[in-house]
Amino acid sequence: MADERRFLGPPRLTSLAAVLGASGGDGVTGDPDRLFEGVAPLDAATPSQVSFCEGRAYQAALSNTQAGLILVSANLASAVPAGSLAVVCRDPALAFGRVASLFHPVPPPSGQIHPSAVIHPDATIGEGTEIGACAVIEAGAEIGRNCRIAPFALIGAKVVLGDDCIIHSHCSVSHAILGRGVVLHPGARIGQEGFGFNTTADGRFITAPQLGLVRLGDAVEIGANSCVDRGALGETVLGSGTRIDNLVQVGHNVRTGRGCVLVSQVGISGSTTLGDYVQAGGQSGITGHLNIGSKVRIGAQAGVMNDVPPGIEVLGSPAAPKKEAMRAMLILKRLGSESRPAAKPKSE
Amino acid sequence: MADERRFLGPPRLTSLAAVLGASGGDGVTGDPDRLFEGVAPLDAATPSQVSFCEGRAYQAALSNTQAGLILVSANLASAVPAGSLAVVCRDPALAFGRVASLFHPVPPPSGQIHPSAVIHPDATIGEGTEIGACAVIEAGAEIGRNCRIAPFALIGAKVVLGDDCIIHSHCSVSHAILGRGVVLHPGARIGQEGFGFNTTADGRFITAPQLGLVRLGDAVEIGANSCVDRGALGETVLGSGTRIDNLVQVGHNVRTGRGCVLVSQVGISGSTTLGDYVQAGGQSGITGHLNIGSKVRIGAQAGVMNDVPPGIEVLGSPAAPKKEAMRAMLILKRLGSESRPAAKPKSE
Amino acid sequence: MADERRFLGPPRLTSLAAVLGASGGDGVTGDPDRLFEGVAPLDAATPSQVSFCEGRAYQAALSNTQAGLILVSANLASAVPAGSLAVVCRDPALAFGRVASLFHPVPPPSGQIHPSAVIHPDATIGEGTEIGACAVIEAGAEIGRNCRIAPFALIGAKVVLGDDCIIHSHCSVSHAILGRGVVLHPGARIGQEGFGFNTTADGRFITAPQLGLVRLGDAVEIGANSCVDRGALGETVLGSGTRIDNLVQVGHNVRTGRGCVLVSQVGISGSTTLGDYVQAGGQSGITGHLNIGSKVRIGAQAGVMNDVPPGIEVLGSPAAPKKEAMRAMLILKRLGSESRPAAKPKSE
Repeated sequence: MADERRFLGPPRLTSLAAVLGASGGDGVTGDPDRLFEGVAPLDAATPSQVSFCEGRAYQAALSNTQAGLILVSANLASAVPAGSLAVVCRDPALAFGRVASLFHPVPPPSGQIHPSAVIHPDATIGEGTEIGACAVIEAGAEIGRNCRIAPFALIGAKVVLGDDCIIHSHCSVSHAILGRGVVLHPGARIGQEGFGFNTTADGRFITAPQLGLVRLGDAVEIGANSCVDRGALGETVLGSGTRIDNLVQVGHNVRTGRGCVLVSQVGISGSTTLGDYVQAGGQSGITGHLNIGSKVRIGAQAGVMNDVPPGIEVLGSPAAPKKEAMRAMLILKRLGSESRPAAKPKSE
Repeated sequence: MADERRFLGPPRLTSLAAVLGASGGDGVTGDPDRLFEGVAPLDAATPSQVSFCEGRAYQAALSNTQAGLILVSANLASAVPAGSLAVVCRDPALAFGRVASLFHPVPPPSGQIHPSAVIHPDATIGEGTEIGACAVIEAGAEIGRNCRIAPFALIGAKVVLGDDCIIHSHCSVSHAILGRGVVLHPGARIGQEGFGFNTTADGRFITAPQLGLVRLGDAVEIGANSCVDRGALGETVLGSGTRIDNLVQVGHNVRTGRGCVLVSQVGISGSTTLGDYVQAGGQSGITGHLNIGSKVRIGAQAGVMNDVPPGIEVLGSPAAPKKEAMRAMLILKRLGSESRPAAKPKSE
Repeated sequence: MADERRFLGPPRLTSLAAVLGASGGDGVTGDPDRLFEGVAPLDAATPSQVSFCEGRAYQAALSNTQAGLILVSANLASAVPAGSLAVVCRDPALAFGRVASLFHPVPPPSGQIHPSAVIHPDATIGEGTEIGACAVIEAGAEIGRNCRIAPFALIGAKVVLGDDCIIHSHCSVSHAILGRGVVLHPGARIGQEGFGFNTTADGRFITAPQLGLVRLGDAVEIGANSCVDRGALGETVLGSGTRIDNLVQVGHNVRTGRGCVLVSQVGISGSTTLGDYVQAGGQSGITGHLNIGSKVRIGAQAGVMNDVPPGIEVLGSPAAPKKEAMRAMLILKRLGSESRPAAKPKSE
């Protein structure tokens, strides 16, 4: 892991006591002053590193690990090798995240503005905010405190950013109001015109004025090269805590509730509404003007063409409730795996 | 809509006479000097605003609206509330677009070149063209009049742009000749090398020289983060008026006719030809070296693997004519929704 | 082809002897001093240009071509018109690539650093490397010799680039170690945080620290606007010679062997491993934590949800071995194309 350390910097020592405090675990005794120097996966960890076990699938790696301390669920604690300390946690992955942050804390924004950044005199920049090389901030933009604006980011005219936002490199943000702690990964496109046009009597397309905006709730995250178009009239809204992966398309006037999760390459057409905690698998699509209930789960590559009531899981293209879709897939699979093409009835 | 107004600027007053002139409607009487101050959707419009009704699906909103003036089709005119003026239009959405532009006209390009832009002395910039902060224009580029080049746009060596083009932020354009009024949304990639290579006897891949270009007809629009590769030999061509949504892939040597519409996340493989007015739904794909006839409609998520004659609608993956695909989907749906797995004939 | 020449520069004359040497063909006699002035496809080539015939599909074009010299496979040599010289090659497309490079050699990097580039004093830039306008190179980056860094590229802190890399415009590279001869097309995103988070007891998402990196082998190519996330713990690895088309998503901790080919809009979820020479068709997807064997071929739009043993071809969503998937598709097609909906047995 020498190369990995290249990006992590020198090891930061952390005591057993600090690890235990961060992990929320209990039941371990040992020298509270014992020091650890990093985190690693089970198969690479050394006796001076902390690791964790995600579940039964990793039981073999757990048995063979050299890790000095392992965060583990109760049912796997007995599989921890004798040479390692075990810390039982209800959610080892969550606990490990906290511990990893002890060793590799994210440095706060520098509060510096690179001299090559182009900032309009009418823009407002909050205290502690860092602005990278060649970033451009247009007139009337209002940027909160302790934000981080990376190189080549464009914050358009009158855009509002809450405190603690992170705008990675090459993002464009226009016609948008962002809450606190929003994260935009590199190349995300927020607030551009949606895909709306009318056809004239002689067959030409005329863009329908796209007069709305994008509103991102607190702690929304948008992946690299994903696109969120602004509302045509009114708003495109992503509820607080919603997480979007890379290369996702969100059409104009889409609205999501809180805590939705859209995996890579999902597409949502215009004016569709999602409730809270909807999950859409990779490459799935939802057509326009639909209502998707809260806690709906949409399978990878599914094609949703109708409203979905809350709590349902749908699969397939066109998407159907899981049970129905699975049965159809099984039947098709059985037809396909027969040794000869399915015969038509002889009488035909 | 206070926040929306943030991006629209102060209200611009427009008279009833102007609204009527722009809408092409007739049959309304009223004080021609009456003033309106904006547009809004039916459910948000005030008595001083203009709205429109898209169709029967919005009839309830129509009955309850407070809008002062409503553009409406003849068959819904009687549903307009007593307090609102109704203007009957053949195409209310198209008419509304015109009216909205009265209230929110797009300002012309400023004609100014930002001092941070990097413009090669051999490039030609037409009169009235605006060039934003940190844009880069390379040697020999020829940019027409009244264009708008946004921050971080790259116009590569010898690229040609017609008049009235809008190149949004972070676009890259190389090896390309653009007509008049072309619009590239943020992060669009035009003219990069296509995905073409040969394999040597010892299994290495060697890039096939990509010597061609991209030619975009007048009024072509390309969505955010979409990609159009240049021809390998010869040209990749998008016909006039073609509209492409976000995150679309157009491979090298693809050719489309006029007025094609490609919805978000469509992919078209190399050397495929589309006629005029082809429509491809979201996330659909077309393999390479095919001929797709004029006015073909391709369903969302369809996978087109064979030529399609003009005027046909295809669905599914692999794509089939609509009637055939719908029947197969229905049969599969019925199989899936039966209460038990479909039985094999007893004799087997 | 006048417009194409715009981007190619003035014709470069090459002798018959040079063409023959580059093509590896044999059996042609003729004046070795005869000069050619370019390459073109069969249907556009003039008597002073060189062309090639890809295969039987182009036999009609071959019969009618005006090309002065044609690279052709043995079985088509007899179809070359009398006025043209034929050069028989084992792989005409590969040979043509070599010949095209004679006429249109790629100029070497200029070795110049544009004055508007922002280069941290702690970065190391190899000899002969060209850095374009407004590129940003952060602290501790190490860039090899004879690289080409285009405008608006961001090379992040401590990133390593081998010799002869080409980083096209608007790319972002962070937390990454690149081998020799890597090519990143415009807007590629390398090394950003992966999509990994844990859920707290009260339903909030907490980003799992993404502490790893991306390692790209020699001669890897990544298409425009494609994304490769860094490892969460450990590395995301693309083996030498792997080629990725535009708009592809590679999740954190994915590992590929040598010479894999991922066509446009493919998505690979986190922690999946591909062997050598795996080929994935356009818009196909692979879920996370799978093992895909060497030389597996995945059809366009396929959805791979299980491990695939080496050498297998899979199709469909969910993906199945080709024979099985084809049979199921045929059965479904037959059901769909019957003149009436498939009847249930009368007894039901």
